[in-house]
Amino acid sequence: MTTNTTTTKQDRYEHGMSVLDRVDGEAGRRIVDALSDTSPELGHQVVAWAFGDMYSRPELSPRDRQLVTLGVLTALGGCEIELDVHVNAALNVGLTPSEVSEALLHSAVYCGIPRAINATLVAKKVFGERELLPISNV
Amino acid sequence: MTTNTTTTKQDRYEHGMSVLDRVDGEAGRRIVDALSDTSPELGHQVVAWAFGDMYSRPELSPRDRQLVTLGVLTALGGCEIELDVHVNAALNVGLTPSEVSEALLHSAVYCGIPRAINATLVAKKVFGERELLPISNV
Amino acid sequence: MTTNTTTTKQDRYEHGMSVLDRVDGEAGRRIVDALSDTSPELGHQVVAWAFGDMYSRPELSPRDRQLVTLGVLTALGGCEIELDVHVNAALNVGLTPSEVSEALLHSAVYCGIPRAINATLVAKKVFGERELLPISNV
Amino acid sequence: MTTNTTTTKQDRYEHGMSVLDRVDGEAGRRIVDALSDTSPELGHQVVAWAFGDMYSRPELSPRDRQLVTLGVLTALGGCEIELDVHVNAALNVGLTPSEVSEALLHSAVYCGIPRAINATLVAKKVFGERELLPISNV
Amino acid sequence: MTTNTTTTKQDRYEHGMSVLDRVDGEAGRRIVDALSDTSPELGHQVVAWAFGDMYSRPELSPRDRQLVTLGVLTALGGCEIELDVHVNAALNVGLTPSEVSEALLHSAVYCGIPRAINATLVAKKVFGERELLPISNV
Amino acid sequence: MTTNTTTTKQDRYEHGMSVLDRVDGEAGRRIVDALSDTSPELGHQVVAWAFGDMYSRPELSPRDRQLVTLGVLTALGGCEIELDVHVNAALNVGLTPSEVSEALLHSAVYCGIPRAINATLVAKKVFGERELLPISNV
Repeated sequence: MTTNTTTTKQDRYEHGMSVLDRVDGEAGRRIVDALSDTSPELGHQVVAWAFGDMYSRPELSPRDRQLVTLGVLTALGGCEIELDVHVNAALNVGLTPSEVSEALLHSAVYCGIPRAINATLVAKKVFGERELLPISNV
Repeated sequence: MTTNTTTTKQDRYEHGMSVLDRVDGEAGRRIVDALSDTSPELGHQVVAWAFGDMYSRPELSPRDRQLVTLGVLTALGGCEIELDVHVNAALNVGLTPSEVSEALLHSAVYCGIPRAINATLVAKKVFGERELLPISNV
Repeated sequence: MTTNTTTTKQDRYEHGMSVLDRVDGEAGRRIVDALSDTSPELGHQVVAWAFGDMYSRPELSPRDRQLVTLGVLTALGGCEIELDVHVNAALNVGLTPSEVSEALLHSAVYCGIPRAINATLVAKKVFGERELLPISNV
Repeated sequence: MTTNTTTTKQDRYEHGMSVLDRVDGEAGRRIVDALSDTSPELGHQVVAWAFGDMYSRPELSPRDRQLVTLGVLTALGGCEIELDVHVNAALNVGLTPSEVSEALLHSAVYCGIPRAINATLVAKKVFGERELLPISNV
Repeated sequence: MTTNTTTTKQDRYEHGMSVLDRVDGEAGRRIVDALSDTSPELGHQVVAWAFGDMYSRPELSPRDRQLVTLGVLTALGGCEIELDVHVNAALNVGLTPSEVSEALLHSAVYCGIPRAINATLVAKKVFGERELLPISNV
Repeated sequence: MTTNTTTTKQDRYEHGMSVLDRVDGEAGRRIVDALSDTSPELGHQVVAWAFGDMYSRPELSPRDRQLVTLGVLTALGGCEIELDVHVNAALNVGLTPSEVSEALLHSAVYCGIPRAINATLVAKKVFGERELLPISNV
C-alpha cells in the first residue's frame, strides 16, 4: 500500500481479517468475537491495525514474526490466552513443534525458568489438541 | 488530618474501612477477609494504608484515581482479581462502562494488545454481572 | 470518521500529527524524528495510529487519557523517555502539577514505591524545566 | 566441584534431582514430569542447572535462597504454579508460615499490593493443604 | 505498637526516619530529600509507612528483609537507584558481599540473566565505593 | 553431546566462550569481564550455560534465536546493555538492519509502543556505530 492509496476503515478491517484468518485461524476470531459487546474498537484494532497494518508488511516473514511474538509473550507473562493463539499461529506458518519448544526454552535464558515453564505448558496444551505429542526432535 | 492529630492503629483501620466500603463495596471486603488467616497485617495495610491514608487524600478525585488504577493494573498483568474489584470501583465512583472500556483500549498503545485484551475480558465479566452489556457509546 | 470515509496513509499521518502537536508538543515530535532513519514505520505508527486513531476518539477526554497513560508508564518502568513526554502532555491538557504528583503517588499502592519514585523524579525534572517547583497543593 | 572434575550430562541431572527432591519435594518433580513430552530439555535444565548447579552452591543457605526466590516470584507475577512449589520449598527448608507471609507482605512495599495479595493467596492454599492455618505469629 | 497506641502523623514519621537511618543510611535520606519539592507525601510514605510501619515489624529480621528486597528489585528491573540504596542496606544489616552477589546470581534462575547482570553491575558499583572488590568467597 | 560425554566445568566454559565469540563478539566478552570481580560465577554461567549449553543446540538456528531474543529483551524493558549486545549479535548471524527494526516494530503490537521505541533507539545506536544508517528496506 502506498501512502496515497485510499481506503476506508471497513477496507482496512476486511484486509486485516483475511490476514488474521490465514495466520491465527479460528482462535483469533474467537477473541475478536468475545470483545464485540465490551470493546468493539479493541476488536477492530486487533484486526485492522495488528493484522492489517503490521502483520502484512513484507519486511519480515510470517514465520519470523511468530518467533518474535513467542519471545515477547513468554517474557510478558500472564498471556496464556494469547500464547494459545500464537502457538497455533506458529504451527500454521511453518514452525515445527520442536522449534516452538526450543524458542520457549531459549527464552528462559533471558526471562527466567518460570516464564518458560508457563509458556511451555500452553504449548503442551496446543500440541496435545493437535495430536503432536510427544514432540520429536528430528 | 494534620500532622499532629493523634490516632490509633484501630482508628486508622476504621477510617480506611469506611473509604473501602464506599469505593470498592463488597468485593474489596472479600479480599480482606480472605487474607485474615494468612496475612492479617496485609489485610490491615490494604484497609488502613491504601484506603485510609492514600485514597482519601483530596488531591485527586475518586474517579481520577480509578483511571490511574485501571492503567496500572492493566499494565502489570496477572491482576485479574484486583481488576475485578477496580472495574467495579470505577463504576461505583462514576465512570461509565464506555469510559472504562476506552481506558483499557487506550492502555494498549502503551502496554500492548494482550494486556488490554486481558483487562477487557475482566471488564466484560463485571459488566455482565451488572447487566450493562452490550455497552453503549452514548 | 465513519467506517466508509476514504483516507490515504498520508491523510492518517497528517491527522495524527495535528493531534500529537496539540497533546505532546515538541517532545513528541523529537521522538518521531529520532526514529526516522532507523524505523520510519514505527514513527508513522506513533503518529497515525497512536495519535490519529486512538487519542482522537471522543470516548475519553485528553485529560482522562493522560491519567491512564501516567498509570501505565509508571507501572511499566524503564519508560523515562516516554514519561517525560507524557508528564509534559499531562500539563498541556490541564492536569496540575499537584494532580500529576498525586497520580504517581497513587500508583505506588499498585506497583510499589520504587516505580513511583522513578516516575516522580521524571516529573521533578519536567516541573523544574517549566519552573513549577516547588509544587503547591492548593 | 572444582573446575576439573569430570561429569556427564547424566551425572549433573542425578545430582540436581537429589537437590530438587530435598528442597521442593513432590511438587517440583510433577513440573519436570509435565514437561517431559513437550520440552524434555527444559525439564533437564530445571533439574541439572537450576538445582544441580545453582541451588547447591554453598555461598547462600537454602533458607536464604527461598527468601530471594519468594521476592522474585512475587514481583514477577503470573507465577502461581511456581510460587506453590516454592512456598512448599520455603517451609521444607525451615521458614515458618509467619516468615513466609511476612516476606510477601514486605514485597508489597517494592512491587505493590496486588502482587503481594496474589502471592499470599497462593501461600494460603499451601498452608491450608499442610494444615497450618490460621498462622500464628509466635 | 498495639492497636490502641495513639500516634500522630509526625510521630510515625520520626519513628520511620530512625529505622531508615539505621538500615539505609545517607542514601535513603537523599531520595527522600529529592522528593520534597515534587511529592512530599511520597517521601513521607517512604519514611512513615515503608520504614516505620513495615520494616520495623519483628516477624522478619532486617537481614532477611534485604534478601527479599534484593529479589524483588532485581526482578522488577529498572530500579538501579533503589538497588543502590538496598545493596548498601544489605551490607549495613550484615549480609556479606559474597552473599549479595549470590542472591543476585540466584535470581537469574527465576527472572533471567539480563536482570541479574543489571543488578550485579549496581552491586559492583556499591562494592567499589566501599572498597570491597574483588569479593572473596570465604 | 550425548548424556554420557564426560566434561569438566572448564571444558564447558571453553566451549561456551567459542560460541559467545562467534555470536556476540567483543560486546559479550566485555560484560563477562565486567562481572569478574563481583560475580565470577554469573560470568561463568553466561558463558558455560547460556552460550555453551543453550545457544549451541541445533534445534533452532542462530538467526532464529536472535529473533526470539530481540522479542524477549524488548518486552522486558530496562535491558539496554543486553539489547546492545544482541542487536550486534543479530547482525552477526545474518539478520539485516531492516529485519531487526521490523522485529522491534512487530513487538509494539504485543508489548506496546514505549518498549518498541526504547529498543529501536538502541538499534539506532548500534546501526550508527556500524555505519548502517539510514536503513534501507530493500
